[in-house]
Formats: sequence, C-alpha cells, structure tokens
Amino acid sequence: MASHQREELLCPICQNIFEIPVTLTCDYISTRRIILNNPKKRNALSLSMLDTLRENILTDVDGEDLRVIIISAKGPVFSSGHDLKELTSTQGREYHTKVFQTCSEVMTLIQDLPIPVIAMVNGVATAAGCQLVASCDIAVATEKSTFATPGVNVGLFCSTPAVAVGRAVPRKVAMEMLLTGSPISAHDALLHGLISKVVPEERLEEKTLAIAQRVCQSSRPVVALGKATFQRQMAQGRDAAYATASKVMVDNLALRDGQEGIQAFLEKRKPVWSHKPEKVHD
Amino acid sequence: MASHQREELLCPICQNIFEIPVTLTCDYISTRRIILNNPKKRNALSLSMLDTLRENILTDVDGEDLRVIIISAKGPVFSSGHDLKELTSTQGREYHTKVFQTCSEVMTLIQDLPIPVIAMVNGVATAAGCQLVASCDIAVATEKSTFATPGVNVGLFCSTPAVAVGRAVPRKVAMEMLLTGSPISAHDALLHGLISKVVPEERLEEKTLAIAQRVCQSSRPVVALGKATFQRQMAQGRDAAYATASKVMVDNLALRDGQEGIQAFLEKRKPVWSHKPEKVHD
Amino acid sequence: MASHQREELLCPICQNIFEIPVTLTCDYISTRRIILNNPKKRNALSLSMLDTLRENILTDVDGEDLRVIIISAKGPVFSSGHDLKELTSTQGREYHTKVFQTCSEVMTLIQDLPIPVIAMVNGVATAAGCQLVASCDIAVATEKSTFATPGVNVGLFCSTPAVAVGRAVPRKVAMEMLLTGSPISAHDALLHGLISKVVPEERLEEKTLAIAQRVCQSSRPVVALGKATFQRQMAQGRDAAYATASKVMVDNLALRDGQEGIQAFLEKRKPVWSHKPEKVHD
Repeated sequence: MASHQREELLCPICQNIFEIPVTLTCDYISTRRIILNNPKKRNALSLSMLDTLRENILTDVDGEDLRVIIISAKGPVFSSGHDLKELTSTQGREYHTKVFQTCSEVMTLIQDLPIPVIAMVNGVATAAGCQLVASCDIAVATEKSTFATPGVNVGLFCSTPAVAVGRAVPRKVAMEMLLTGSPISAHDALLHGLISKVVPEERLEEKTLAIAQRVCQSSRPVVALGKATFQRQMAQGRDAAYATASKVMVDNLALRDGQEGIQAFLEKRKPVWSHKPEKVHD
Repeated sequence: MASHQREELLCPICQNIFEIPVTLTCDYISTRRIILNNPKKRNALSLSMLDTLRENILTDVDGEDLRVIIISAKGPVFSSGHDLKELTSTQGREYHTKVFQTCSEVMTLIQDLPIPVIAMVNGVATAAGCQLVASCDIAVATEKSTFATPGVNVGLFCSTPAVAVGRAVPRKVAMEMLLTGSPISAHDALLHGLISKVVPEERLEEKTLAIAQRVCQSSRPVVALGKATFQRQMAQGRDAAYATASKVMVDNLALRDGQEGIQAFLEKRKPVWSHKPEKVHD
Repeated sequence: MASHQREELLCPICQNIFEIPVTLTCDYISTRRIILNNPKKRNALSLSMLDTLRENILTDVDGEDLRVIIISAKGPVFSSGHDLKELTSTQGREYHTKVFQTCSEVMTLIQDLPIPVIAMVNGVATAAGCQLVASCDIAVATEKSTFATPGVNVGLFCSTPAVAVGRAVPRKVAMEMLLTGSPISAHDALLHGLISKVVPEERLEEKTLAIAQRVCQSSRPVVALGKATFQRQMAQGRDAAYATASKVMVDNLALRDGQEGIQAFLEKRKPVWSHKPEKVHD
C-alpha cells in the first residue's frame, strides 16, 4: 500500500492505533473497513488514492474470512471526486486517460467483487465521489449527506459518474443532477435509489455494521454466486436473464452451503456454512 | 386442474361455495380470480402449485369474455416462494431444473398474456412469492404486507426472483433486499415501484376490483396489443422502440375498436367495443 | 414558422407583444421559450403543431447564444396529445403513419439536441402530451398538474407515449398508467421520476428560470458533449458505457472550456467560457 502521508489514527471501531496511508484499512475477521483519509484534500480520488483504494479492496479479497467491505471517509467530505490538479493540460492526454481508466476499473471492480461493498457516507459526495457511492452494492448515509455531479460547473461534465448514477436513479433525476450540478439531499437520494438507507449521524456506524453483520451471517460462496449473477442477468433481456438465473439456482442448490441452508431450515436449526463467518462486533 | 387437497370455500366475491384444488379460480364474466389456497404451507409455489397456477391462468385465456386476472392468496402469507422440500439433494438436479424452468415459465407467461394480471396482496410475499408480485402488471397491497427476497438466509440466493425484482425497483433497493434478505414495507415497495398501490386492509377488494373494472371497460384487442407492445419495445433501444410503437399505433387505429373509440369520443358517447365487457360487480 | 391562427399575445416574461402562430417562441439571449398556444384545442399535438414545434426547436439551435429551451403551454391543459380528428379512418393509414413518425421525431429530437430542454407544466399532460414531458431533459410542474396515458379509454393504447414514459418511471407505474388510463398527481410523478420538481403555481416561472439560468452559466460545448454522451452510454452495457464515457472525459479535458473551467476553479475565479452565456433575467 502507498506509504506517503503516514499519520497515526485511532480506529473508531477497534480502538487500535494505526499508522495509515491515504486510505485506512482495518480488518475485522470478516469486515474490511476502508477509510478515505485525506480530508484536507476533500478525499479527492487522485490517481494515487484510486490505486491505493484498488489495492485495499483487492488484498486477500478471495480469502475465506473476508465477507464484506465498508468504504467510509474521514472529514466532512466523503469524496469530492477527481483531483482537478491532475486534470490540467500540463499532465496531458495520456495521463488523463490513465486517470479515467483507473477510476472506471475501481468502480466496476466494486461491482464485480465476490463480496458486497457498502458505502458509509457522512457528508458530501460529489462527482467521482458520488459515482463511488452509486457503484457500491449498498449505501448508508447520514441525514446531512448530500450528493452531486457538479462537473458541468467547472467545464468537465460528469460523464463517467453518469454511467453509475444514470443506472441507479431515474433518468430525469440523473439529468437534472448532471445539467445543473445542484446537490440532492440524502432524503431525495434515498427516494430515487441512489442510496439504501438514511440514518441519524449518531447511528451511522451501528446501522451500517448491522447490515454488514447480516451479510457475514450468510454463506460466502452463495453471496458470491448471487452477486455475480445479479450483474450478469441485469445486462441481459428478460428471457435470457431467466435462463441464466434458473441455471444458477440449480447450481446454487448443488453447493454444499445450498443444501446445508435448506436442511438447517427444514430442521429448524442454524446453518453451519462452509466458511463460518464471525460476528462483526463482539 | 389438480384435484388433491379439495375443500369447500365460500367465495368472498360471488358468495358461491366451491370445491377447490390448491388454487381457487372463480370466473366472473370478465374477471378471473385465482386464489392461492394452501395457507398451511404458506402458499409455497411447489411444482404442483406452479402447474395449477399455469393451468388456471391459461384456461380459456383467449376467450372473448375474460378480461383480467386477479391473483390473491388465502391466509397471512401471500406466498413464501418455492417449497424448500422440493429443493433438497434427494430430488436431484433434473427435478430442480424442472422447478425453476416451470417457475420462470409462469412468471414470463403472466407478462406475455394478452390480458392484464393484478396481484392482490394481503400479507407476506417472499422469494418466488415476491417474484410473482413483481411479475404481475399491477399489484395492490395492504399496509401490513411485506416483501422480501430472503433466500440468502437459507443458502439459496434469490437469483430468479432477482430477474423480476431487479427490473421493477432501483438497483440498490434490489441489491439490499437480495444481500440482506430483510423485508421492505408496503410503503417502501410502493415508493420503489414494486407495487402499484397501498390500501387499508378493509378496502383491498374494493380498490383492486375498481382497477379490474377499469380494465374491463376498455377494448380487449386494444389492451392485448398495448400490453404486448409495451414488453416488446421496452426490450429495445429507444429508436427501435419508437419504430415498433409507431407502427403499432397505426395498426391500432386500423382495428375496429380503435376507430370506434375515437368516433365515440368525437361524438361524446360511450364506445361499444367489439367484445362488450361486463361489469365486475353487479 | 406556420402562419395560421395568428393572434396577439403579451409575453409574460419580456412584456413584448407578439403576433404568434400555434406555438409562441420568445428568445432571450440564451433561453428560448416555446409556448404551446392552442388552448381551445387543449394544445393538441396536431401534425401542424408538431411541425411548428420542430421548427421552433430547430431554428438556429446551433447558434452560439441559444443555451436552453423551455416548453410550456397556454391554458389549463399542457397538452392533450394527438388530435383525434386526425386519427379517424378518413385520413387513412399513410396519414396516420406520418403523424406518428413526426411525433417520434420531435420526441427524439428533444433528447438529441445539443442543448437542454425543460418542460414547464401547469395543468394536464396526457398521452403524447405526457410523452412530451417525459422526453424533456428536465420537467418542472405545479402541484395541480396531472399526468396520464389514457389512450386505452378511446381504444388507442398509448404505445408511443409508453416508449418515453416506460423509460422514465418504474415499470409497474407505467403499466398501471397505461392499462387504467388513470391520471397521477404531480407529487406521484415526482416520486416516480416522470418530472424533476414540483412547485407552487405562483413560483413556476421563477423556479424554472432558475434552472435555465444555471444551465446558461455553464459552457455550451461542455453541456452539448455531456448530454449527447449520457444518451449514448445509457444505451450501452456497463463496460462499453465506461469505455465511451472515459474517452469523452479525456476529450472534454481537451476542450478549451474544459481547461478554462479547471483553471478558474484552481485560481478561485469565475470561468470565462468560449461562448459567454447571458443572464436569463436582467
């Protein structure tokens, strides 16, 4: 992981002190916390931040224990999107291409991961920061959080954020956000499907971890199969989607955990998954 | 129709007593009521139930009089989805394949039918039961109804329900339902487009029949053409969709009922459709 | 522009008196107002109205100054959709084909235009009138406005309006509107993404012009690139969409206004766009 900008930080969850790079990761047995940790730069998704984020996400992502990733941020801004200093003509076309390619890779990586990724938002999420929220599987946000795609105001239309945002909310909502750059409230973001839940600030951790815990209580291979299938079938027409999903259901039943879950249900006992998940909180 | 589990039931609408199989059908002149009638088994969509449901749907579906189908359920659970006993390893891959194939056929059949299908929900709809609601053209539910895709909890990710649910609600809503298995309220289901209307329990029949009645007052061939076209054009890109729909509009105008409707409107009289629909209620 | 049905009208914005055809256009330096002006015929989208609308939209649309189009209507009905008198068998198939072809062209033209189009609605929008609202990039409506696709009631299913409405709102919402013909309130239209904002009647102009003004303050070529890209990528699968949008971001940065916007932001000054937009209101 990137080693610049190291500082010490008390993890709000595990109470350990970490030496941290731009992002902070703090693995519980089943839950990885990734904390965007460059509040002075409004957690801009610089190329370095994107690289670190990708590394933090990918490290041991196929390990048996890791069940869910939570992405949050330090400071009042969840993320302001790309670092505009990296987008001046000084850097040149090739560098710009690399920035957007990396960004798209991170966003699609999140959706293609075998485990769920939760955005835990307490503040402003704009441009690629808003895209990051839209790209996560689940997003929990505080009431004060806001969401915007304001690139149009600085002459850089949020076309890549629009890929994620346009697939999350109704078209007119996306269009107004993109054309005016105006922020929408957490309430409206919930209403339109950009986020999954709005909670009071003091309950953000608790509510997010409760969702993470639910995920941890399910079977890893079953979740991996289900998440991948969802992405695949949603890109297909209805009949092809049903053919895909029906086959997957049969495959799911052939998994050890598929049979264990049904047996446990029929026997009215708790299932014992092949990779026993641990509690998020003790 | 299946003849097992026969019992007597007083139809709440027509006050006749029926000997009924697993599902109950009760045809008015224009409205078919199909009532899932296995409350002890939480109206599980067993292979037998699915077969009966398909038969109930298809019987004389092309008859001139039948204008709308209402699917409801007896008991506090609308439907709990597949019968898990049919999904153990004992039955084997071939049987499982048949179950999911039949289920997908029933769900797509509902959407491809020439007449509208309304789900009338008063209770819990989970997994394939939730998929059934999502697959109907219109869904009216009571305030206490809830909707969930909890397969992940028993090691069987709701991948086939996700085909219908993922096309009905925003992605993040679908994803949270699928990954956590948590139920959503009727209010949230309405908010996100999974159902069409929420009503107090005591007005469920009245409000549902009012919608059915509206359908019955329109022209059968016009509705058939319109419903089929909607499914077709929604699977196309915008320009192809407009080409499809524009041609259909011209064809619609060439129908006897297309001209009758317009003439009646211009002459300020009620239209007389080619297949005169009857009132749902007398 | 069409010269029939001329009358005098005091423009509510600029206080000038115009001799107007069926539609009224009133250009500010950056904002074109198109006002459907046939209230006696409920602003029906007759072939003549559609032709005029297209002409009003296209006139100098590539001029540097024009930044946004606002479509509103005179009278209590925004638009009742097609003129049914044009759809009787008297006109014949060829004429009908021309009507729907022209209509689809106008609707897609709005979406393909290099500048944003805002619907400003104060009243009833039905059938192709509802389609027009759905086709605009942004729609602001008063609380009393209602939206419906009631063609089914006159034997002409709203199949072309369904192309736009079905892509704007959740499927079940669209289906209920199409199958029952029942109107939905402005509140529900907002909830489901058919419109962007609901405002009190006395603030309709102010709120709409505020959005127009925001658009006028941004760069014309950047908005043109962004709007076109949104339409393009939304028709693609996710990965192709990201490839499209990432390339566009790099192209956007290579625009003079792309660099000017970022420089201005970094230097904490207002950007000076290549085509300086003017204020909507003085």
